[in-house]
Amino acid sequence: MRADQLPSREITTDLYELTMAASYFEQGMFAPATFSLFVRHYPPNRSYFVSAGLDDLLDYFESFHFQPDDLDYLERTSLFSSKFLAFLENLRFTGHVQALHEGRIFFATEPLVEITAPLIEAQLVETFVINAMNFPSLIASKAARCLYAAGDRRLVDFSLRRTQGTDAGLKVARASYIGGFIGTSNVLAGKLYDLPIYGTMAHSYVESFPHEIDAFRAFAKSFPKNTVLLIDTYDTVAGARKAVTVAREMREAGHALLAVRLDSGDLVHLSRQVREIFDAAGLNDVRIFASGGLDEFSIQELLAAGARIDAFGVGTRLGVSADAPYLDTGYKMVEYAGRPVLKLSSGKVSLAGLKQVFRLKDDRGLFWKDLIGLRSETVPEGEPLLQEVMKGGKRLLPSEPLDAIRKRFLEEFGRLPETYKKLEEAENYPVETTPSLQALQEEVTREIRRKELGGS
Amino acid sequence: MRADQLPSREITTDLYELTMAASYFEQGMFAPATFSLFVRHYPPNRSYFVSAGLDDLLDYFESFHFQPDDLDYLERTSLFSSKFLAFLENLRFTGHVQALHEGRIFFATEPLVEITAPLIEAQLVETFVINAMNFPSLIASKAARCLYAAGDRRLVDFSLRRTQGTDAGLKVARASYIGGFIGTSNVLAGKLYDLPIYGTMAHSYVESFPHEIDAFRAFAKSFPKNTVLLIDTYDTVAGARKAVTVAREMREAGHALLAVRLDSGDLVHLSRQVREIFDAAGLNDVRIFASGGLDEFSIQELLAAGARIDAFGVGTRLGVSADAPYLDTGYKMVEYAGRPVLKLSSGKVSLAGLKQVFRLKDDRGLFWKDLIGLRSETVPEGEPLLQEVMKGGKRLLPSEPLDAIRKRFLEEFGRLPETYKKLEEAENYPVETTPSLQALQEEVTREIRRKELGGS
Repeated sequence: MRADQLPSREITTDLYELTMAASYFEQGMFAPATFSLFVRHYPPNRSYFVSAGLDDLLDYFESFHFQPDDLDYLERTSLFSSKFLAFLENLRFTGHVQALHEGRIFFATEPLVEITAPLIEAQLVETFVINAMNFPSLIASKAARCLYAAGDRRLVDFSLRRTQGTDAGLKVARASYIGGFIGTSNVLAGKLYDLPIYGTMAHSYVESFPHEIDAFRAFAKSFPKNTVLLIDTYDTVAGARKAVTVAREMREAGHALLAVRLDSGDLVHLSRQVREIFDAAGLNDVRIFASGGLDEFSIQELLAAGARIDAFGVGTRLGVSADAPYLDTGYKMVEYAGRPVLKLSSGKVSLAGLKQVFRLKDDRGLFWKDLIGLRSETVPEGEPLLQEVMKGGKRLLPSEPLDAIRKRFLEEFGRLPETYKKLEEAENYPVETTPSLQALQEEVTREIRRKELGGS
Repeated sequence: MRADQLPSREITTDLYELTMAASYFEQGMFAPATFSLFVRHYPPNRSYFVSAGLDDLLDYFESFHFQPDDLDYLERTSLFSSKFLAFLENLRFTGHVQALHEGRIFFATEPLVEITAPLIEAQLVETFVINAMNFPSLIASKAARCLYAAGDRRLVDFSLRRTQGTDAGLKVARASYIGGFIGTSNVLAGKLYDLPIYGTMAHSYVESFPHEIDAFRAFAKSFPKNTVLLIDTYDTVAGARKAVTVAREMREAGHALLAVRLDSGDLVHLSRQVREIFDAAGLNDVRIFASGGLDEFSIQELLAAGARIDAFGVGTRLGVSADAPYLDTGYKMVEYAGRPVLKLSSGKVSLAGLKQVFRLKDDRGLFWKDLIGLRSETVPEGEPLLQEVMKGGKRLLPSEPLDAIRKRFLEEFGRLPETYKKLEEAENYPVETTPSLQALQEEVTREIRRKELGGS
């Protein structure tokens, strides 16, 4: 078991998945169903998404089976028959999965995963499927926005202390790396995902020494190759002067101070002052690292205002995607037993039928528009984005190295025109539906209205 | 291991905790330090907090020890000496902890946990301490706001599918129960925390039958004692009429339809229409359950507008605390080796010294004001809120039953005057500092300025 995988993933689910499954079982409803995962709307300030989470999801499918202890619990609820519990005991996931590879860019309303499996299997996994894809994709998208704002400056994930739980901390480290960060402060994430880990020092380190400069010297002695000094504990400018002293001492000893960190105050003004202090001392190579409540908006503002910052530690506001902390992701049945289905609930209409997303590019290779069509269609010049990644419950797509996923994202991001990348008021990327898909919706809707509303 | 406890909690930490510890080790800095956990500011719309997460935290302290596999990883980073790694191998948490019991109400700037331990221990736990307390307290506070809005209507946690990871889903189920919810849809949370679990059906259930009424009948047959029918898949009013038919059939069979669920559309208008349809059919006992993007604000609006809703399923916006997805929680050193310390960083000044929070009540037993003072002080009539919960690394406070914590919260919540409970623009509850605590801050600040800024 990987440490990011909680046991009992099969009952990491809403109760209704199990009660529905029990009822399907009783009714003998074992025909295949297809469900489609998609984000309904853009949250505020979002104009694209970055796919992440598929590896966990496929791993969950492949290892799906109820633990004896969990079945005992279900029995104690007195909701389920012993026949159904015996059925669950032997249940494995045998479905087919079409999905977007991790690191790819997608847009609202586009399916990013489609699952076809016997109804009970496809239903039981609903809660976990949404949970596994929603948050990582949210964070990879937030990271991409930070990357856009930061240009060629480096970004490190500092969010673990205030992520929504520890599992979230791991998911943020992984997804932000996909979205262009260079690493994380999260040590467990470093171990599990083989990510570069970074760290500096806290204010408490400085405070635990009689004088600030004693702290700087002690850290330089302990980590002569990795010294980044936090200089704002008492006064940033005074701290910078002490850091210059220590940097010179390090140079005499054959080492080099890597950077200083600013964590509070007016970062534009302070970074310029600190840069001047180091440059005047001939320490042009010492970098300035900034942190403290940052996100893509403040990074963009700082740089526009002329801050002299080389790298950013981005914490809480990345780790919870503070301006948009969730995606409105749905997992909707689109076909059962060969019959296309949809719902007509106000504001939440779904699209019937097995689908494919086709991406069209312009002659420079930039994204032009996407078409959502039927899976059986072909669209000339359109790249089909959903690929078969699991068949009969077995992975066709092995676990990919994170660096490969990150590279895929960076390549894709370069093909997304600037106008869709703006942090606020970006244009809506064009996503259209094909005539065949539209015709199917009309046909299914008409049929439902006839059957369900005629007599009411 | 409980399923909500990820392994490798010791390296669920920021790298700098370990590099600082290595440096302290090298410097022989083993004197006791005290750190204080507090929320700096209120996020938007918040005027009080509900404490949650302590049980996990104490469990973490009591079981703290580095796993061989994690030490191997640390060795592979080449950052740490073999002496230090050998030290870590034998390290246990031996500290003392003063804390607010779970379910108690607290306010911005008040310490809710104070930890005294040898410097390295107190430092290493920082990231996990914040993570373990911050999110559960955030969610318990959000749940309390929903409870305030819902009055005597029941609330169920429906958030799992869109929580930020699966660990977050468990924490939301537990914390929202503390904050007055009656249970959760999260099956694993039901198992781990012995919580009541609830569920209805999804739209896919309805869609998988040829006709909506077939779905209603099948579910009533499978769960005659627990039938809640989702009636908005195609048309809510038409769905309600079919539910009436099924409710009558259930009555003839000696059962009763518990409720119908509305998940979309104008819930004020629809709930009134549906109530009329059921009342006109003599089915006054059938309850109306509502869900779909709800939170405390929409619940308050719905009820003010005359919605006829008996219970609410609250999902995503509870589960990520959507309007305020994090607390600005800090864990700051306040004393090292008997010397009170603080930082002067702009906007982030901390309070030196070991502290206590004293709560004063009026003659009706309602909260009047809190005083933050030195731990050594006594305040006449003031109840000291921080209690000793761990001594020498051993729990003094055993794991409490959730129902006892929930009861404590409900009792406390009844003592918080209405003016602090309003969802928006609530008054700021008065929190003052004692003259002795103020005097200490002035003394320490003066001393720091003399030492650190005089010569710069």
